[in-house]
Amino acid sequence: MNTPISASDRPDSIPVLRLLPKANARAIRRGAPWVFDNELVMDRRTRKIAPGTIAVLEDHDREAMGVVAVNPTSKIVARMLDRNPLAVIDRDWLFAKLTKAVAMRDRMYDKPFYRLVHAEGDGLPGVIIDRFGDTAVIQPNAAWAEMLIEDLADALMAATGVANVLKNSAGRGRTLEGLDDVSTVLRGVAPDAAVPVEMNGAIYMADLTGGQKTGLFFDQRDNHAFAARLSGESSVLDVFSHVGGFALAALANGAKSALAVDGSAPALELAAEGAKRMDKVLDTRQGDAFDVMSALADEKRKFDVVICDPPAFAPSKPTLEKGLRAYERIARLAAALVKEDGYLVLCSCSHAADTNAFTGACLRGIGRGGRRAQLLHTGTAGPDHPLLPQLAESGYLKALFFRL
Amino acid sequence: MNTPISASDRPDSIPVLRLLPKANARAIRRGAPWVFDNELVMDRRTRKIAPGTIAVLEDHDREAMGVVAVNPTSKIVARMLDRNPLAVIDRDWLFAKLTKAVAMRDRMYDKPFYRLVHAEGDGLPGVIIDRFGDTAVIQPNAAWAEMLIEDLADALMAATGVANVLKNSAGRGRTLEGLDDVSTVLRGVAPDAAVPVEMNGAIYMADLTGGQKTGLFFDQRDNHAFAARLSGESSVLDVFSHVGGFALAALANGAKSALAVDGSAPALELAAEGAKRMDKVLDTRQGDAFDVMSALADEKRKFDVVICDPPAFAPSKPTLEKGLRAYERIARLAAALVKEDGYLVLCSCSHAADTNAFTGACLRGIGRGGRRAQLLHTGTAGPDHPLLPQLAESGYLKALFFRL
Repeated sequence: MNTPISASDRPDSIPVLRLLPKANARAIRRGAPWVFDNELVMDRRTRKIAPGTIAVLEDHDREAMGVVAVNPTSKIVARMLDRNPLAVIDRDWLFAKLTKAVAMRDRMYDKPFYRLVHAEGDGLPGVIIDRFGDTAVIQPNAAWAEMLIEDLADALMAATGVANVLKNSAGRGRTLEGLDDVSTVLRGVAPDAAVPVEMNGAIYMADLTGGQKTGLFFDQRDNHAFAARLSGESSVLDVFSHVGGFALAALANGAKSALAVDGSAPALELAAEGAKRMDKVLDTRQGDAFDVMSALADEKRKFDVVICDPPAFAPSKPTLEKGLRAYERIARLAAALVKEDGYLVLCSCSHAADTNAFTGACLRGIGRGGRRAQLLHTGTAGPDHPLLPQLAESGYLKALFFRL
Repeated sequence: MNTPISASDRPDSIPVLRLLPKANARAIRRGAPWVFDNELVMDRRTRKIAPGTIAVLEDHDREAMGVVAVNPTSKIVARMLDRNPLAVIDRDWLFAKLTKAVAMRDRMYDKPFYRLVHAEGDGLPGVIIDRFGDTAVIQPNAAWAEMLIEDLADALMAATGVANVLKNSAGRGRTLEGLDDVSTVLRGVAPDAAVPVEMNGAIYMADLTGGQKTGLFFDQRDNHAFAARLSGESSVLDVFSHVGGFALAALANGAKSALAVDGSAPALELAAEGAKRMDKVLDTRQGDAFDVMSALADEKRKFDVVICDPPAFAPSKPTLEKGLRAYERIARLAAALVKEDGYLVLCSCSHAADTNAFTGACLRGIGRGGRRAQLLHTGTAGPDHPLLPQLAESGYLKALFFRL
């Protein structure tokens, strides 16, 4: 920070983005990772930069602030890659970022199954990498990463020792970045069957090529563990179970019985396969979660522990009101299935619903179900999903543990 | 809720409090546990009610809403004890509440060392009970509990099987309730030495009669565990260590070395005694935390993991600004002691500083220390500190896990 550096100090010639005088350069220097279109000189030259291009960001006085990835078609035109304006974004640079990411996970987890890169939180904007033993799955949801995908695959193999690298292109963000939705095998081979993943004493079957409905979500691991602690000797209902995240952890921790409910038959088959490998019995019921919960109420069924982990009902601000009503309805239906002094776990992965709004919706639903609640714990995504503290929005996952 | 009940339906004759028309009866019916002086008819009769008296709360239409504990000298005049207006607050009632509290803890913890009653969160306003094996310590910080202290002690022995019940009267809230600060032994005997408590694989020495400086805080248990996961093979600095909460858990989890810093020599002696029982070596340094951190910086000391768990710098709104500056200063001093790619854990037990304000102060301090941070995890008090969801204020404890 002593002698100001400008883009012209670089040996290579890369585009330059310049801040407007009104931009909050101080916030960017303090760690804000994104620069918006209304903070930048958006001249014709800048508008013509291809999405994914690497550029130098300068403040209004032409002092270089760092190296950014550019997408002029997005509201977030520049995403910070490196605070050093002379940094070269190449295979070595990616290797250093990945090595740092691996070091933290290896400290926290005794087996190599985790989210290895959580986008901005790990200094790689728009890049998600999940690791399943010797296979890694990259979601390059930003154009800059797509352009460097071969270097990224090489660096990933070098930093982790994985043999197989898959590319999953189903992410919603890719369209905005002008990217296709073609998933491929980048290195090695795709597993020819679902991969067994051990977490919290349970075995989950992860189908790495079958798409979102049959993959695996690492973010709920700590919440699975917390619910499992509550589930010993208990009857457990896991609604929106996917491949059995909460139900199988509960069975591994001594639950008497577990019923998994999901709309996806393939997901329930994987859940049942996991239970079989654990020598446990998992009951499943396929169908719409709202319908199944109503049916269970009609059957006068009650459970010691009920968990609802629905898809994002309020992914964006325009969907917030409707989403909160859906969460309230879930809470009301679920509360009716919880025994006296039993436990209710309600989850939200909605970016737009913050903890207060989500808690409020849950309490209204529980209250309309004629119940009252203690709040034991508020869980979030695990530490393999680190946040950039400046991006409050990145804390999307909430798991509320109530006792009724 | 079908036929309205009024206070006159009770066989006994107990005082009646009545809501003003402007009071938010709906919020109280929905679960708000407190009734403020500006919501109640505060006539001369009401003002003369002795603190701790049990009364019936009625709405403006004389419909009974529940049984409350009254303190006309507090801003919170009534605290809800039971939503059933006919409930009798006696030994059996206390036994039922305690039995429910024990059931949850026994599910979560394999040894009987935990916070057994967390005031409103467990339906016993103003009452804190910590359990250390066969000894329980009651903090009756509300007049109603002081009046029922003998029933409470009997119910506690019956519900838990503890042999010894101590009363700790050092709580700040007692003055407002017109209560003395005399601690006593209610049942059995006081332990004649510090009690060993096993948590997270460590052994902590808890002096149950020596007061706050040498007791034990159960609320940080899950945060100790999280930090310990980060601390394997590492050098650890535990500032404001008290009896070694973070340091001993780290040593139990394979930390190479741990240095505990505290202003209290007795607390550090207990920490060293715990380490000795674990066959581990704990380094200690007694002194003002700010001074010791400055000295360590002068000595060019660096640690893989640094934890600061200071006392509440912002316990109340008037102290907020000053408190946040103190947290910022701590963060700056502590960040300087963390190795590159090391971990920094910053805690706040300040009611007045919410998570956003506290995080902001920490980030300013870290930034002024010339460092940048990832946020891995935000920890709170453990599940033996349940919250009434309607009381956001009760979530006082924040532990931020940064990687620098």
